[in-house]
Amino acid sequence: MKIPPVKGTRDFYPPQMAIRNWIIDGWKQVSVRNGFEEYDGPIFELLQMYQIKSGDEIVEQLFSLQDRGGRDLAIRPEITPTLARMVNQQINALPRPIKWFSVPRLCRAERPQKGRLREFFQWNVDIIGVDRSTADAEVILTTLDYLRMVGLTNRDVQAKISSRKLLAAVLRGVGIPEEKLNSLYAVLDKKAKLPAETFEAMLAEQVPDSNQARVIQDFMVARSVEDVESLVDFDDDIQNAIMNLKIVFHTLDLMGVSDYCVFDPGIVRGLAYYTGVVFEVHDVVGELRAICGGGRYDNLLRDFGGPRIPATGMGMGDAVLEILLAEKGLLERQVPKPQLEYYVTCADAIFTKDIFTITAKIRETGHSAAFNYGLWLEPSGTCEAPSLSKQLKDAAKQNASKCVIIGQEYADKRELVIKDMTKDQPSQAQVGVDQFLSDLT
Amino acid sequence: MKIPPVKGTRDFYPPQMAIRNWIIDGWKQVSVRNGFEEYDGPIFELLQMYQIKSGDEIVEQLFSLQDRGGRDLAIRPEITPTLARMVNQQINALPRPIKWFSVPRLCRAERPQKGRLREFFQWNVDIIGVDRSTADAEVILTTLDYLRMVGLTNRDVQAKISSRKLLAAVLRGVGIPEEKLNSLYAVLDKKAKLPAETFEAMLAEQVPDSNQARVIQDFMVARSVEDVESLVDFDDDIQNAIMNLKIVFHTLDLMGVSDYCVFDPGIVRGLAYYTGVVFEVHDVVGELRAICGGGRYDNLLRDFGGPRIPATGMGMGDAVLEILLAEKGLLERQVPKPQLEYYVTCADAIFTKDIFTITAKIRETGHSAAFNYGLWLEPSGTCEAPSLSKQLKDAAKQNASKCVIIGQEYADKRELVIKDMTKDQPSQAQVGVDQFLSDLT
Repeated sequence: MKIPPVKGTRDFYPPQMAIRNWIIDGWKQVSVRNGFEEYDGPIFELLQMYQIKSGDEIVEQLFSLQDRGGRDLAIRPEITPTLARMVNQQINALPRPIKWFSVPRLCRAERPQKGRLREFFQWNVDIIGVDRSTADAEVILTTLDYLRMVGLTNRDVQAKISSRKLLAAVLRGVGIPEEKLNSLYAVLDKKAKLPAETFEAMLAEQVPDSNQARVIQDFMVARSVEDVESLVDFDDDIQNAIMNLKIVFHTLDLMGVSDYCVFDPGIVRGLAYYTGVVFEVHDVVGELRAICGGGRYDNLLRDFGGPRIPATGMGMGDAVLEILLAEKGLLERQVPKPQLEYYVTCADAIFTKDIFTITAKIRETGHSAAFNYGLWLEPSGTCEAPSLSKQLKDAAKQNASKCVIIGQEYADKRELVIKDMTKDQPSQAQVGVDQFLSDLT
Repeated sequence: MKIPPVKGTRDFYPPQMAIRNWIIDGWKQVSVRNGFEEYDGPIFELLQMYQIKSGDEIVEQLFSLQDRGGRDLAIRPEITPTLARMVNQQINALPRPIKWFSVPRLCRAERPQKGRLREFFQWNVDIIGVDRSTADAEVILTTLDYLRMVGLTNRDVQAKISSRKLLAAVLRGVGIPEEKLNSLYAVLDKKAKLPAETFEAMLAEQVPDSNQARVIQDFMVARSVEDVESLVDFDDDIQNAIMNLKIVFHTLDLMGVSDYCVFDPGIVRGLAYYTGVVFEVHDVVGELRAICGGGRYDNLLRDFGGPRIPATGMGMGDAVLEILLAEKGLLERQVPKPQLEYYVTCADAIFTKDIFTITAKIRETGHSAAFNYGLWLEPSGTCEAPSLSKQLKDAAKQNASKCVIIGQEYADKRELVIKDMTKDQPSQAQVGVDQFLSDLT
């Protein structure tokens, strides 16, 4: 009986697994060097946790299930609610600032398409307990530190930065009532994805006053933080939001990544919980979905039953990133090929027992080693082995760097022949077995 | 609104995450050195996949869910069915032998108890395409290679090895009909977990003939493969099964791990799919559940719609292992403590901008660095910083190895003060900033 995999999921055969490991190892390495510590939560949580603050889109896409007690659960579609729960649980015991990262496996019941899967991995970095813009800059720097490390330049990717607080202040400034802000965010968030006319029609529906709509339109195409200053009256909220943004850009400049960063007021972010600086990284060509997105969410921990503690963070999925890295040839060049270090062979079947002994000893030193499974050895001594040339051919097929040959030299002087397979003309050397093993440790 | 985690799941705060990473990194390292390549599948599969061959206990404990098309899915309770599906899908393209490992996250709706969780990680190693006993020995060696590497001796753990094929041959030899074998396995598998009288009663129910029951009882307490030879008539099946077991023990002896291995016919394994050598590793004290279990399953790929290809493998969960490692003090001694390498500070707020620049440069070299989030710097130059002594105190709290101090020496000669915090009496040195950074790369 043949059963297919579920649509929208991936099978990671060793070559795909090598790519996934390389991406995730890079995320971890950059997180640690930027001062973050790793955490993780369970793969499922109580369903209601995702009904508090995740966007409507996410709630619609939950994979929900019941446990045996009839409790409603859901496979996690994002890890931020888990983060909020975990931090709230130990709020008094955790040293601040909390700089945490995670690489959760997430599931969303989406229609599978390019860069969107039902199951994916997402790098999350979050700083909790710091209200200063430096923390927002740190999150963006960490993101760019990774993208730069894997070889993406500012001709490939761009961090588009704005501020939900600035947007809110501008909207309030032109007279939009508080209760209309959330639905207006949803429209503005779609600007880049819609034809100009469709967007204008949608905006007009939300904001019938054409003067108001014009200021909003002008704001959405501002090219610099300074441009915004001339657009609207300068109240405290706007001044404060502009100063925060300026500090973020200045800090990123000092940190050496300003050539990746632009101000883009079109960045709104779909999720309801953002309260300050928001950003997304996009491919410069603009053919793919956002590579990552994040921002400040100062109210989320309170919404999950904890105290009001400022927080800022970022999430980057593996699907879009992998497409971009593949397009730029950066996977091909950087993902390590599996390499077996030693393939242990014998010139005669009588050395079969020595293959077992020496292979196990090589492995114990920490180096990889294998041998041919055509070997046969009974306790009585009865043995058989494929020919040496067949064993050597198998070593090449398994991409072994070196072959260890156990032959007459071993019987005579306990010496091994080591054949280097990485060169076009394999070279050979002879070495005593004890010397060989002690060189490995 | 405060929402609790789901019972039987774990939150991995950084200290717990460090333990999980250390365990999993060890599994990966030992897998690679023993010649295995990593794979993974999706977190859920079609429900029916688990109804084919997983044991009844596992099927009862499935977390099942539906996708939007109404298809029945289940979170994976084990990865072997996925492995069978993936291998069958590419059966003609995959080079043999297939030596694969994986560290899947698995979920079972069990009653949470010591060493049993609803969500856990399980190390799996499998060799597919080799019928020879050498492959069974390789799987057991790989298991023991890991346990030995993390410091468990043969006074802590023991690999108990038997053969489903031998057991089947013995049962057939005493006259048990073929169709009763599976239900009898289930009884025999419980022997070690039950009081002797309860076991005898259960056996008598399955095998009313007391002569038959006596031979089975005698077999179950045999201390060596040789003991079995005197118990039963020597047909080809028995001879063959005994030879396989002897080869496994002999190979493990040559590989240097025989002091961990015993023959134990009480090892039956619950799962229906085993066909040959089976084994479990137990703590010697016998207080915990099995640390791992595995064996040969030559029919599974065929049962999943593929050709009949021999296979042998092992699974080790993290829950029981972690309990044992903690009891033996092996986590405390070996799991690395998080260590921040550089904490960058300033003796005066005017150096705030240099903190950002130098921190980013240290990180780019691959070393971890952080600074105090009390720093404030506006593009105009307005700045503030906590006192140096407060910054140094924070560095100590964050367990930083070294502090970089930017002060007057930096203004005068672009030199940094590097303070080594790992010694009881912190030592200081002065070094030019360019020299410092180039020494790091």
